[in-house]
Amino acid sequence: MDPISLVRAGVANMSGYVPGEQPAQRPDLVKLNTNENPQEPPPRVVQELIAAMPAINLRRYPDPGARLVREWAAKVYGHGLTPEQVIVGNGSDDLLTMILRTFVDPGEWVVAPGPTYSLYEALTQLQGGRYREVPWHGDGGLPVAELVATRAKVVFVVRPNAPTGHVVALEEVARLCREFQGMVILDEAYVDFAADHGLGLLAHHANLMITRTFSKSMAMASLRIGLGFVHAPQLVAELHKVRDSYNINAFSQLAARIALEHHADYQPIWTEIRRQRARLTDQLRQRGFTMPDSQANFILARVPEAGPEAAWWFEQLKDRGIHVRYFARDPRLSDKLRITIGTAEELDRFLAVVDELGTF
Amino acid sequence: MDPISLVRAGVANMSGYVPGEQPAQRPDLVKLNTNENPQEPPPRVVQELIAAMPAINLRRYPDPGARLVREWAAKVYGHGLTPEQVIVGNGSDDLLTMILRTFVDPGEWVVAPGPTYSLYEALTQLQGGRYREVPWHGDGGLPVAELVATRAKVVFVVRPNAPTGHVVALEEVARLCREFQGMVILDEAYVDFAADHGLGLLAHHANLMITRTFSKSMAMASLRIGLGFVHAPQLVAELHKVRDSYNINAFSQLAARIALEHHADYQPIWTEIRRQRARLTDQLRQRGFTMPDSQANFILARVPEAGPEAAWWFEQLKDRGIHVRYFARDPRLSDKLRITIGTAEELDRFLAVVDELGTF
Repeated sequence: MDPISLVRAGVANMSGYVPGEQPAQRPDLVKLNTNENPQEPPPRVVQELIAAMPAINLRRYPDPGARLVREWAAKVYGHGLTPEQVIVGNGSDDLLTMILRTFVDPGEWVVAPGPTYSLYEALTQLQGGRYREVPWHGDGGLPVAELVATRAKVVFVVRPNAPTGHVVALEEVARLCREFQGMVILDEAYVDFAADHGLGLLAHHANLMITRTFSKSMAMASLRIGLGFVHAPQLVAELHKVRDSYNINAFSQLAARIALEHHADYQPIWTEIRRQRARLTDQLRQRGFTMPDSQANFILARVPEAGPEAAWWFEQLKDRGIHVRYFARDPRLSDKLRITIGTAEELDRFLAVVDELGTF
Repeated sequence: MDPISLVRAGVANMSGYVPGEQPAQRPDLVKLNTNENPQEPPPRVVQELIAAMPAINLRRYPDPGARLVREWAAKVYGHGLTPEQVIVGNGSDDLLTMILRTFVDPGEWVVAPGPTYSLYEALTQLQGGRYREVPWHGDGGLPVAELVATRAKVVFVVRPNAPTGHVVALEEVARLCREFQGMVILDEAYVDFAADHGLGLLAHHANLMITRTFSKSMAMASLRIGLGFVHAPQLVAELHKVRDSYNINAFSQLAARIALEHHADYQPIWTEIRRQRARLTDQLRQRGFTMPDSQANFILARVPEAGPEAAWWFEQLKDRGIHVRYFARDPRLSDKLRITIGTAEELDRFLAVVDELGTF
């Protein structure tokens, strides 16, 4: 028997999500393709983690409720949140899967203003749901009426959005919560790099859920830590039914708790990323690239119209050891490059290679 | 709007899987309820893990392909396996979820000889599939014809079985693979404590998949590491479509690789568990408990017929700081206790409390 014939049609026919390339680490490589933090976590976080690790009982199951992480998250993020409103994921992608498995039956619709994070489509397909994107308004505004009109079960709004980096007004998110007759998922993966966030909305909107990740601002992509915040604790109870009982391992729970304890130590890292983001934006605009203002730790730059195509830039940069992200298959993005904000030195090297390739 | 009304009926109506209790750790607690290893991993494994951890780039995404783990697994487990036949899960429960999402469409059947691991039912429900158990033959044999007759899409066989601890003959598993027109999943979570295993069957049966976990024999329940082995690499490619791209974090990948490198160091731990299993079986039988011979790291003991009920034993033991597993809701199991094989000292304490409670 051919076991491939046993695979669900919905899976067999999909191509599968392709994450950004993770090239083998070389000291001369400039990796600006997957929005990692250019710095390791603050020294105190790393030191305490190294010191505490040997005390983990490796043989024992981790706390299935990730209690300490939830308590620290409620404390650090404030806004009257309680641990019962917090859920922990094996990265925020794990939370996105839980959301789809909790709310979306086969054939039901999931929508998002697009272009946006392409994993939503892949996860909706896996769940047997139907997915479509509603274009952002021309000025980058949230298409509230159009999203409401879809009558979908779930809407994902990334703020700051990936891969554009732009933000919509929080009042527009609030309006979407009031008018949309389904779950509103506000994906705040990049929000620590932005001017404001939506946690204050949770108290007022029962259909709002906010997700965060430790992979970007918290410099812990290696450890797969995501947080979800909801209005009603009962919703956490429903999400827990679809959660793997032991989704977060003991080391990641330890790391998350220590990082939250020293949350304030991350501020200088974020300030520097914002400074470098402003510099990169300015420098690339001077060279003929165009882009919206970004509030994330990346920019989405359209290559100069007078010069070669984005695919050429992507390959030339890669040949010179500089990895950026290129979305070849999406016509809305295929004239653009997404560039993670690296260190000042990494961005200097990137800009030097851009100049070497020519200014248009 | 009440967001609970948005939850899928299939989720809202289920009660959710309840894992064994993870009580707060106290030195006087004897924890024999979740089949953890009573020993920490071998000293070399722990030492190398502690030494290697500070070199992890916390800020970087882990290898999404878990390449080194798969290479070491293929090497250590032999039988001509290649890394392309190996898939890594965030615990073997993650693999079980992947299996259901890859093969089971809503309404399709999943079966297992039962009683068995109760998570299969919960995961099938989540996927919208239908689940039923076919009773083991009276002698504990595999009901091959009955399972084939169900015409299900997937059959799970746990070997040694949980929670009974008994094994079926490998030839019967091979016969099931030949006759069953769906995927056969051989769950070998406990196989390192048994006399033989099924990896040698993989070369001959395209519809066979074997799962392993590091939570029991490898003494790493804290780190959530599971391995899957398939006949055809193309099947790994399909499973990868439903896998979270970064399901295994960097620390767990490191730990898994080091544990596999020193796989032989685990042998004395397993030998001691087998010795204690024989002793506990003997001692409990002398006290009027009855049980099948177990090849796992636990036994399923029916309490003495002349004495109080299993629920009483469970509570009395717990009051005295000894946690065992009791399956109150399953009438096939409600007269039994599942007891993990602990250290000699832990089992001495357990037996002393049993004697204190009375012999029947």
